[in-house]
Amino acid sequence: MTFKSTIKTIQWTNNISRMINQTVLPYKFETVDIKTAEEMYKAIKDMIVRGAPAIGIAGAHGVSLAALELSKNINDKNTFLEQLQKKAEYIKSSRPTAVNLMWAVDKQMKLALNTEGNIKEITEILIENGIKLENEDIEINKKIGDFGAEVVPKGAAILTHCNAGALATVGYGTALGVIRSAYAKDPSIKVFADETRPRQQGARLTTWELVQDNIPVTLITDGMCSYFMSKKMIDMVVVGADRIAANGDTANKIGTYTVAIAAKYHNIPFYIAAPLSTIDTSIKSGSEIPIEERNHKEVTHINGDWICAEGVNIINPGFDVTPNELITGIITEKGILKPDFKASIKNCFTV
Amino acid sequence: MTFKSTIKTIQWTNNISRMINQTVLPYKFETVDIKTAEEMYKAIKDMIVRGAPAIGIAGAHGVSLAALELSKNINDKNTFLEQLQKKAEYIKSSRPTAVNLMWAVDKQMKLALNTEGNIKEITEILIENGIKLENEDIEINKKIGDFGAEVVPKGAAILTHCNAGALATVGYGTALGVIRSAYAKDPSIKVFADETRPRQQGARLTTWELVQDNIPVTLITDGMCSYFMSKKMIDMVVVGADRIAANGDTANKIGTYTVAIAAKYHNIPFYIAAPLSTIDTSIKSGSEIPIEERNHKEVTHINGDWICAEGVNIINPGFDVTPNELITGIITEKGILKPDFKASIKNCFTV
Repeated sequence: MTFKSTIKTIQWTNNISRMINQTVLPYKFETVDIKTAEEMYKAIKDMIVRGAPAIGIAGAHGVSLAALELSKNINDKNTFLEQLQKKAEYIKSSRPTAVNLMWAVDKQMKLALNTEGNIKEITEILIENGIKLENEDIEINKKIGDFGAEVVPKGAAILTHCNAGALATVGYGTALGVIRSAYAKDPSIKVFADETRPRQQGARLTTWELVQDNIPVTLITDGMCSYFMSKKMIDMVVVGADRIAANGDTANKIGTYTVAIAAKYHNIPFYIAAPLSTIDTSIKSGSEIPIEERNHKEVTHINGDWICAEGVNIINPGFDVTPNELITGIITEKGILKPDFKASIKNCFTV
Repeated sequence: MTFKSTIKTIQWTNNISRMINQTVLPYKFETVDIKTAEEMYKAIKDMIVRGAPAIGIAGAHGVSLAALELSKNINDKNTFLEQLQKKAEYIKSSRPTAVNLMWAVDKQMKLALNTEGNIKEITEILIENGIKLENEDIEINKKIGDFGAEVVPKGAAILTHCNAGALATVGYGTALGVIRSAYAKDPSIKVFADETRPRQQGARLTTWELVQDNIPVTLITDGMCSYFMSKKMIDMVVVGADRIAANGDTANKIGTYTVAIAAKYHNIPFYIAAPLSTIDTSIKSGSEIPIEERNHKEVTHINGDWICAEGVNIINPGFDVTPNELITGIITEKGILKPDFKASIKNCFTV
């Protein structure tokens, strides 16, 4: 295993989208080549690629792949654009919560519709733009990391939930970007990683990334966070986001809200780290964010084995919404947004 | 599988202590016969038997087994009692947090030391008393259940953490005793069971017990509780206890404290259900309760498989302490203790 955080989680290469297969980490390191929009839909749905910024790029690549495929058989530009729009909507339907997917696919479609050239030219422009978004993602994350590092106290122990790392983005990470930038300045910081049941992205992905980078990481189960907070062993919390409403309410991996409540109870700062593309200014509050309901086997099984009695009921929301009152700041590539979030978000998008 | 809640989790039979092996549930139902104090130490430490009231009875049986064994080779009563005391201390050292273990073992030793008869008579009295404590446990739990059922609203959805059921006691359960009594009066109630990582007693044991009794149960991961609370899908919380301080601070399975904070944030009643033997009036507050640190593999492995990257740090506290300010009431066999707990507990033990 030679993964370093500088290797891209998703990368356009020779007209395919190559991605790290996140369903088999940390047991196996392998990449998967995605060649069609349909394969991309499945890769996003099955979480071969996951993390809001990464599935944004996956969506953009998906449109490029659709254009490549359609351009082989369609000569009429209007028909091409109509078919491309259908494929785009299909890709967007793979997962409902992370808005970066819609943002990136819509960005590609707007470009396709506004391009004067022929089908071949449109296809080339979409591919180029997919690569551009891919590269911009890392730059954005480094900016997020640098802004975030400024609020990390010397020697801090930082709790994170799920994986908002290099694996959730093209590289470097959002929440783990903050941690990487902080660690570069101060190697005495350390990390607590929530396991993040049911899919254990914290255990499987976050510990793996941090161990690779030699950043000290303690794995804890999700219920333990309050214990360590009460022992003053956690100084701050930083997590990623899947969608942020205009008032700052933030959807993120299920369990985030519980951590935020615990942080509030212990007066520990709770930060969101996310690119501006995660902010959905079209919705007023978190109650409008659609929450994905996922397969029940994620709860009843681990590594293919039953962990409970048969006959239980399951409800498996993939995300929860942390209300803005629990959030200390939203760390973006343009700086840290502070309460009142409604005002600071509005200001950020109008300047 | 023919388990019903009326089958005893631990039972004295023909000079052995027979117990349900809780490490293999829900995959396999089997009993284990414990014949010596050393086997009992290991059964408690390895959690073949677990749950504060059940390990209390296990401790009492352990002293009976020690007396049986010693009586075969020792003729001098003082030597016998000295050796018995050593074995008793050894059994008590198997797990540090649940005070019922100390309570039951000390009860047996006090009886041994205060009995006038010979070694054979003392041994018989210890065995009889172990059986008496065993039978009393179920009676106590039914009283707890009946008192608790009075505060369960019609059609309530009740969240519980870990397993404070028949399997945590001799039978019927404490928190699940409340649920059983409530369900007997109102079959429209339903249960949410926290998975309870790392050892998954909620997933493995609580769902199994409730499915056996046809009480509707929804399994959720530990981080999900706040989500369902915010959706008004949880009306109250009832959990067990491993040790309650004189001021009401309560040690229970790790993760309980996080649930209690979430309940407080959502204004949801949070109850402890426990026999009076769980209250340790010798300590003023929860900060004096020793917290067991358990094997790191409980966090890094599930069903024998790694779930994280190698090279992570682990801290694995088995319990946390919920401060009294988060507790609505403590349901005991003498009624429901209410804040101010310092006063209500004192009153309960002096009347």
